[in-house]
Amino acid sequence: MSVAVINYDQPMRWEPDSRGRLEQAAISLYGERGFENTTVAEIASRAGLTERTFFRHFADKREVLFAGGLLLQELIVSEVSGAPDSLPPVDAVAVGLEAAGAAIQERGDYPRQRQRMIAASAELQERELIKLAALAARLAEALRERGVDDPAASLTAEVGIAVFRIAVERWNEEDEPGDLPQLIRDSLDQLRAVTAGR
Amino acid sequence: MSVAVINYDQPMRWEPDSRGRLEQAAISLYGERGFENTTVAEIASRAGLTERTFFRHFADKREVLFAGGLLLQELIVSEVSGAPDSLPPVDAVAVGLEAAGAAIQERGDYPRQRQRMIAASAELQERELIKLAALAARLAEALRERGVDDPAASLTAEVGIAVFRIAVERWNEEDEPGDLPQLIRDSLDQLRAVTAGR
Repeated sequence: MSVAVINYDQPMRWEPDSRGRLEQAAISLYGERGFENTTVAEIASRAGLTERTFFRHFADKREVLFAGGLLLQELIVSEVSGAPDSLPPVDAVAVGLEAAGAAIQERGDYPRQRQRMIAASAELQERELIKLAALAARLAEALRERGVDDPAASLTAEVGIAVFRIAVERWNEEDEPGDLPQLIRDSLDQLRAVTAGR
Repeated sequence: MSVAVINYDQPMRWEPDSRGRLEQAAISLYGERGFENTTVAEIASRAGLTERTFFRHFADKREVLFAGGLLLQELIVSEVSGAPDSLPPVDAVAVGLEAAGAAIQERGDYPRQRQRMIAASAELQERELIKLAALAARLAEALRERGVDDPAASLTAEVGIAVFRIAVERWNEEDEPGDLPQLIRDSLDQLRAVTAGR
């Protein structure tokens, strides 16, 4: 018979999804007592982690809300880069955005809590705009690496991010959150209809 | 024989294009000595106007760079609202954006100097993003007033502003500035090709 032994004199190195736990703890505390009135120590404590662990993942308490965006960006770019060469640029972008949509959907209530928080603060909205502009720029680069020329690359990327943002906003506003990747596909279809003048 | 008499004891109330003169003076001074090192008094003096006149047009020296955007917004919205009912939403937006393009083009070197200035400062880029997001929101509203439902209204507006921004950026980067309204039309055609998967 073997027994699992935890040595409490050693710091625990195995912290399953510590990033996700910190994000969830932060968003809950921001909602309960406001962003300004929440400290990093409180976030770490609520997540059952140390401040040191917090700072391994995030530069400050504002970044908790935006660091996930960088992971989404990496996911989108890697999907776009890996999409079959035969796919037209807009469809390669769609592959990336749908993958991001699926990842967001897996986060449960977190994305809606985050969205509500951002909608309530001009400063956070600004930061979100900047992150989305950076995402569009990185996406355009990924398209250029696929051999798409400018301005088509920038245009496709910018328009893709606009579609993505509108789809995520709609999804966040739904009473019963639906299927986000499907909503992204629908928005792209709508974009096609719109630009065709229908 | 009649002689025009100017009473120099009275402040001059007629200041032809004082707003444009202040903008041009500001952008020249920002270029020469930097944004931080330029005062409102210097801008007014360079434009041959008073500080009081400056503050009748602009809240502060940063706003000089963005107040013109509000006039463009009014122009775009009024063109979109006045476009024939029979025009599909994307074409109504095109009418507004082309009018804005024509107005920008009339400003000579100013738009390029402004663009260069903004490109060099993260803070100014953030402000530009916020202003463009507000413009997209206002444009979506103008489309809803034309009877366009959401999400088509938001989608058309967001995508229209993305096209507009890319066209203006390209125009600013050209060695010999070309025809901006034409460039906007070309970008919209490119968008149609892109979304059609070509």
